[in-house]
Amino acid sequence: MKQLYRVSRERIAIKLDELAMIGTTPTGGVTRLALSNEDQQAMELVAKWMKEAGLKVHIDHFGNLIGRMEGEDPTAPAVMIGSHIDTVPNGGRYDGTIGVLGGIEIAKMIKEEKILIEYPLEIVAFSDEEGTRFQGGLFGSRGMVGTVSEHELDKKDDAGISRYEALKAFGLEPERRKESIRNKGEIKVYLEMHIEQGPFLQAQNLPVGIVTGIAGPAWMTLKITGESGHAGTVPMGLRKDPMAGAAEIICNIEKICKQDLLVPTVGTVGKLNVLPGGTNVIPDSVEFSIDLRDIDLERRNDRLARVEQVIERICTERGLTFELTHHLIQDPIHCAGHVIKTMENLERVLSLDAPKMISGAGHDAMSMSEITDIGMIFVRCRDGISHNPKEWSDIEDISKGVSLLLETALSYSRK
Amino acid sequence: MKQLYRVSRERIAIKLDELAMIGTTPTGGVTRLALSNEDQQAMELVAKWMKEAGLKVHIDHFGNLIGRMEGEDPTAPAVMIGSHIDTVPNGGRYDGTIGVLGGIEIAKMIKEEKILIEYPLEIVAFSDEEGTRFQGGLFGSRGMVGTVSEHELDKKDDAGISRYEALKAFGLEPERRKESIRNKGEIKVYLEMHIEQGPFLQAQNLPVGIVTGIAGPAWMTLKITGESGHAGTVPMGLRKDPMAGAAEIICNIEKICKQDLLVPTVGTVGKLNVLPGGTNVIPDSVEFSIDLRDIDLERRNDRLARVEQVIERICTERGLTFELTHHLIQDPIHCAGHVIKTMENLERVLSLDAPKMISGAGHDAMSMSEITDIGMIFVRCRDGISHNPKEWSDIEDISKGVSLLLETALSYSRK
Repeated sequence: MKQLYRVSRERIAIKLDELAMIGTTPTGGVTRLALSNEDQQAMELVAKWMKEAGLKVHIDHFGNLIGRMEGEDPTAPAVMIGSHIDTVPNGGRYDGTIGVLGGIEIAKMIKEEKILIEYPLEIVAFSDEEGTRFQGGLFGSRGMVGTVSEHELDKKDDAGISRYEALKAFGLEPERRKESIRNKGEIKVYLEMHIEQGPFLQAQNLPVGIVTGIAGPAWMTLKITGESGHAGTVPMGLRKDPMAGAAEIICNIEKICKQDLLVPTVGTVGKLNVLPGGTNVIPDSVEFSIDLRDIDLERRNDRLARVEQVIERICTERGLTFELTHHLIQDPIHCAGHVIKTMENLERVLSLDAPKMISGAGHDAMSMSEITDIGMIFVRCRDGISHNPKEWSDIEDISKGVSLLLETALSYSRK
Repeated sequence: MKQLYRVSRERIAIKLDELAMIGTTPTGGVTRLALSNEDQQAMELVAKWMKEAGLKVHIDHFGNLIGRMEGEDPTAPAVMIGSHIDTVPNGGRYDGTIGVLGGIEIAKMIKEEKILIEYPLEIVAFSDEEGTRFQGGLFGSRGMVGTVSEHELDKKDDAGISRYEALKAFGLEPERRKESIRNKGEIKVYLEMHIEQGPFLQAQNLPVGIVTGIAGPAWMTLKITGESGHAGTVPMGLRKDPMAGAAEIICNIEKICKQDLLVPTVGTVGKLNVLPGGTNVIPDSVEFSIDLRDIDLERRNDRLARVEQVIERICTERGLTFELTHHLIQDPIHCAGHVIKTMENLERVLSLDAPKMISGAGHDAMSMSEITDIGMIFVRCRDGISHNPKEWSDIEDISKGVSLLLETALSYSRK
């Protein structure tokens, strides 16, 4: 039987607490927007911990904090563990941070236990995963794999500061950013541990899960226009009410995504505006967002096509006009089969009973899949709540996730 | 065969144009909020026209502009014709005004044609029918029938001016308002002509209609609360999505109100807010307005009860909580059978082919029904549009309405 290492729950808990002090909000949440003063303080603290864990630290030109430990073979590709430490406004203390602190704990274990690694190990805190400040997430990881476009550095925050200026103010040299791009072959495998941000593990009563893939989101806005009128004077039979049409479409979106509860298709209408918006006025137009995701590209596209058919049919039947705008459409990302298999073998050894599951939310691992094989571990979080001061994960669950992450990383660190 | 009078289309058109000049907006609408400078200017102009038509003019303590012409028997109850000349912000030029100007044209006809009337004739421009400025409509007519409550005079507009202060600034003595209340028996009949503000007459291709009653509105707000979550991470089967629940309820409201297209029940959701309102966030709560109306009280209440049952059932099935707040619930008002019959006889003589119809919107006639029998005439308006610069009625249709109003008033003016 293979040797198992015992990670330090206390060390992780203390670091989580200390990190959460930076940017604490009155309601107990955390606000650490990318490249802000709070982000800088957090980076300095995490850099200090990285150094204590035996990692050599630098910040690349995209703002990614990278700690590296050489293996026996310094020319071999690195095993990379990453996540992020920036937050949304008034977000939680676990989102992203557990992956970075978990990685540091692993480096510390390797150093203290004098575990032999042949491949280099890199622990990364990616810059601006959340994307709140400059309206574009996964910035650091996209930067690292070379998919950040030129114009993105011109994007400004609410105060009119561009990302370029913010990177400069952070002491970086964004004009040299090409030097920070990593190529295929440089990274052997990318591993990320993250809170689930959903209720699946809690519903299963299980601490950690093995992610098989990340759903590909399709984001749209649908604007339906009808005929406004007085709520009292237009008979039902003469109405072209875009609100009634929108309601029928929303019911159908739910039906299409819910038809088979065994498949992980999800469809959400999270935003809706009615114009002009008076109690006694039949609306003139209704605009709403549609977020449709699935891990299976074919099924996602099938559901998408069916939603589009339903929109067309309902609007035609009701004499409404519509405009459907696609904002974002991404293919699902699959975790590498060999990583999933490795994790499955290890979770059995660790007696975690970890289910396979998909990620509905995007993560830095999505970007990293451009240049390397990826694997992800999810940790249960209470009631699936995230991006919220109430976000909460048990330190015991986190430790179990770190154990699985450690053993997985070690598997890949040896020839 | 009875003598028919020919009303002057030109005189009405010129007055409509002149009145629309007061408070004209850049988009061609009219803004004449109650008790504003524009309202005062309009009152002065209309008072001048009333005097030219042989009416004795005064403004009562509620701000109602009243022109009176004595009949042979000055002690007899008056035949009253009324409507309003105030508007919503950027409203239309026909809403209310055609009833007042139609009344003035009738007085002028009686004077010029030396038509004998035995009962007094009163033409009224009621104060603040729209209710925009102080959040309470039908003010003047409710004042006249004694149903304005004490505290209503304390209500303030956006500038912090109370209605009491506005009435004072208008040169009135609101503290003496009790003297302006009219009693049962003082008014023989109340007649009102108004644009339809709906598409029924246009759909029938007919110029005027005879109103049989005014629908009683029930106004509610429904707040549905579920469980917020990440749009990508919560499986459909584990969701408590208040938006999906709201959509199902809105579909059912439409179904309940539309089940029998021969009955005039109408149900409208005109306002809806989603919280927190993010594309990739399952909403936490959805709040929307419900406006339900019918001319038949029993049927209105039946539909209301069914809507409430549906809300209860859908929220229970979906694990959502809800809060239903009733804001306003009014009984339908019926026009007097004898007025409807009189109008029916006259419209046949006038070859108007006027259909009987209900009013879905409230009018000053609703208030007046507290103390006297009422009758209403609707005039076709283009596309049912009202409270909008695009509001438009053909002067030919208006003239036909005035003819029917004149003949009806004359029927009641003789013993």
